[in-house]
Amino acid sequence: MEYAEILLGKGGGETDKQVYRFLDHGQRDVALRFDLTVPFARFMAAHYHQLPLPFKRYHMAKVWRGENTQRGRYREFIQIDFDIVAVDSTSADFEIMTVMAESMRALGIEAFRVHFSHRQLFNELLETMDLAGEYLPVLRTIDKLKKIGAAEVEAQLEKRIGEQPARKILDFIIPEDTNRQTLEKLSSALPQDSPAVARLQSILGCIEECSLDTLLLLDPSITRGLDYYTGVVFETFLNEAADIGSVCSGGRYNDLASLYTKEKLPGVGASIGLDRLVSALEDLQVPGSQKTAPDVLILLLDEPLLGIYHNLGRSLRSSGVSAEIYPSTKKIAAQLRYAEKRGIPLAIFFGQNEMEKNIYNLRDLRLRQNYDNLTFQDLLERISALLHPPQDR
Amino acid sequence: MEYAEILLGKGGGETDKQVYRFLDHGQRDVALRFDLTVPFARFMAAHYHQLPLPFKRYHMAKVWRGENTQRGRYREFIQIDFDIVAVDSTSADFEIMTVMAESMRALGIEAFRVHFSHRQLFNELLETMDLAGEYLPVLRTIDKLKKIGAAEVEAQLEKRIGEQPARKILDFIIPEDTNRQTLEKLSSALPQDSPAVARLQSILGCIEECSLDTLLLLDPSITRGLDYYTGVVFETFLNEAADIGSVCSGGRYNDLASLYTKEKLPGVGASIGLDRLVSALEDLQVPGSQKTAPDVLILLLDEPLLGIYHNLGRSLRSSGVSAEIYPSTKKIAAQLRYAEKRGIPLAIFFGQNEMEKNIYNLRDLRLRQNYDNLTFQDLLERISALLHPPQDR
Repeated sequence: MEYAEILLGKGGGETDKQVYRFLDHGQRDVALRFDLTVPFARFMAAHYHQLPLPFKRYHMAKVWRGENTQRGRYREFIQIDFDIVAVDSTSADFEIMTVMAESMRALGIEAFRVHFSHRQLFNELLETMDLAGEYLPVLRTIDKLKKIGAAEVEAQLEKRIGEQPARKILDFIIPEDTNRQTLEKLSSALPQDSPAVARLQSILGCIEECSLDTLLLLDPSITRGLDYYTGVVFETFLNEAADIGSVCSGGRYNDLASLYTKEKLPGVGASIGLDRLVSALEDLQVPGSQKTAPDVLILLLDEPLLGIYHNLGRSLRSSGVSAEIYPSTKKIAAQLRYAEKRGIPLAIFFGQNEMEKNIYNLRDLRLRQNYDNLTFQDLLERISALLHPPQDR
Repeated sequence: MEYAEILLGKGGGETDKQVYRFLDHGQRDVALRFDLTVPFARFMAAHYHQLPLPFKRYHMAKVWRGENTQRGRYREFIQIDFDIVAVDSTSADFEIMTVMAESMRALGIEAFRVHFSHRQLFNELLETMDLAGEYLPVLRTIDKLKKIGAAEVEAQLEKRIGEQPARKILDFIIPEDTNRQTLEKLSSALPQDSPAVARLQSILGCIEECSLDTLLLLDPSITRGLDYYTGVVFETFLNEAADIGSVCSGGRYNDLASLYTKEKLPGVGASIGLDRLVSALEDLQVPGSQKTAPDVLILLLDEPLLGIYHNLGRSLRSSGVSAEIYPSTKKIAAQLRYAEKRGIPLAIFFGQNEMEKNIYNLRDLRLRQNYDNLTFQDLLERISALLHPPQDR
């Protein structure tokens, strides 16, 4: 929650209309965050003099937008932001791009691409074409490419600026076969001293050095609409769910907190829309989105042994085995049904007899195979062998 | 955010007054969560038939309460809830208590105690004293013990129920030297078949078996005021910051979701008030609350080597060394000042010369000691040795 005056007028008229705003119990005019960038700007303005600069931060939190819900669009959702501020450099741009790519990989997603471009390309291109005045309408039209397709974008551009220029812009924005070829095309269409091309060139160098060519795609059609970006811009598409839109977007801005401080804070960052991403992963049945379960269920066979079961659970956990104790003395069949429903692969049978002999009985519930009369050390080794069979190692 | 009707009337009149409530853009009557239990009840009522029961969940999220702020009390704060529902058993009670204790330990806190009791003790005690009708006022008074002290509680009880009964209740609620002694006292004051004593007895068995006597304290003065608890109740105090109040509280309730479903869902759970806990840890200067920094700063000495620096960072990270690349070509002195301000212990000096010879120069910024001309393997070993000197292993 923020004071309304902090949030309003910061994201353009569209976001103002979507802000949830109300009077609190002390009649203060307050509102719920619609993104994490505006609160970050307020934070930076208040604290930049105490922070080591350049400053890096990540922030995962809910945001709210009073808009019409649809596939991939929610009124309440979680954003994951990461930014590097108080520096304008290739290194910072590239680092954010690697965080984007590595985040997707960490989630078990391999079939994705981070599309990137530079916001200044169009300023430069339109100037060479004597169309500088058409910047906003051209950008707005290109931004619709993924929604309405190349033919429709060309038709709309043609109507506005004529056939030849429309053709030229369309040639300009479609990526070539390789990042290098795309860069050469941009370079030949723009002035030799183009700062946008120079920045993209040096980003490409990093991409190649780190072998990220297949994941990071130079795509001049990326503009991020009318947002506040001034340098590189990024969007991330899942190969098999491109229709859901970008799941991680961002770019470089030249002044984060100009509304709150005179200190100039250029930065670069991106944001994952977590709910949209999770929804796409569920559709795609990416394994990481499956339910999780402990390795072992310790059956509660004998109520007086409860403390011993819990102590066994603690010993297993401290040996790196996640273990759960069934929490009541139901029939064994019911306890095993619970294990199956949870997807727990192994169960430990341990009662008065086993305690007296100091042994453990283990059952692999997947293969319905028993391993009986194990010492604690044997139990640990057997669990490890069953959970990580040799071919997996 | 929830529909207001879901939240209101669920936490007693006091919470209703604190709820942030407003009309959304579609004129729906909505409100912000004041805890995570009511939304959990709504969730369980809607989904219990699809879930493996007993069901365990944890939930970390913000909640809002429009109350007067003070030390340890906030209007916006994070709660961490964990519950086991659809079972009423010693095992579940004890598991929640171990999660409470292990959570504190995981945060680096050793000087704490989880105080626990059973809500039915007083019903049973007051019945033996023919004071069943005085249940609520007596409970309310005892709940103030940690705030106003034993003498004042006794005085207030005396005024209400007379000297002898007041004395008896006060004797009853003060813990003895050991959990066993406290239990014996309770046991002798209550009927032989007391279900509360039986449950506490079997919890004590688990505590002893798992050697948690020093962390889990049977304390009959714990009542959790007028909350909805019906069985065991818990509060957690930091030994050196008891005045801030309980940092993790909870208990057993006999029906989570009675307002939303006829399905009876008994459960047990607790909640960490994260902001209050962090504030206490900062006061106590617990090491875990200090700032974090990567192990290594790779200095950006030579802009054309940027890709190589980033690739080096990736190699270090995949070897388990956290590494950061300074994001611009400032003077070396400025880059080292940044490392110092961040508390980064090591820096890598790598320029055109080093690249040609395929070597790395490492500097320990704490001792101002250089390790030059290292191969990559030597670099890894040196970093490991400097970060984990033998006496730490």
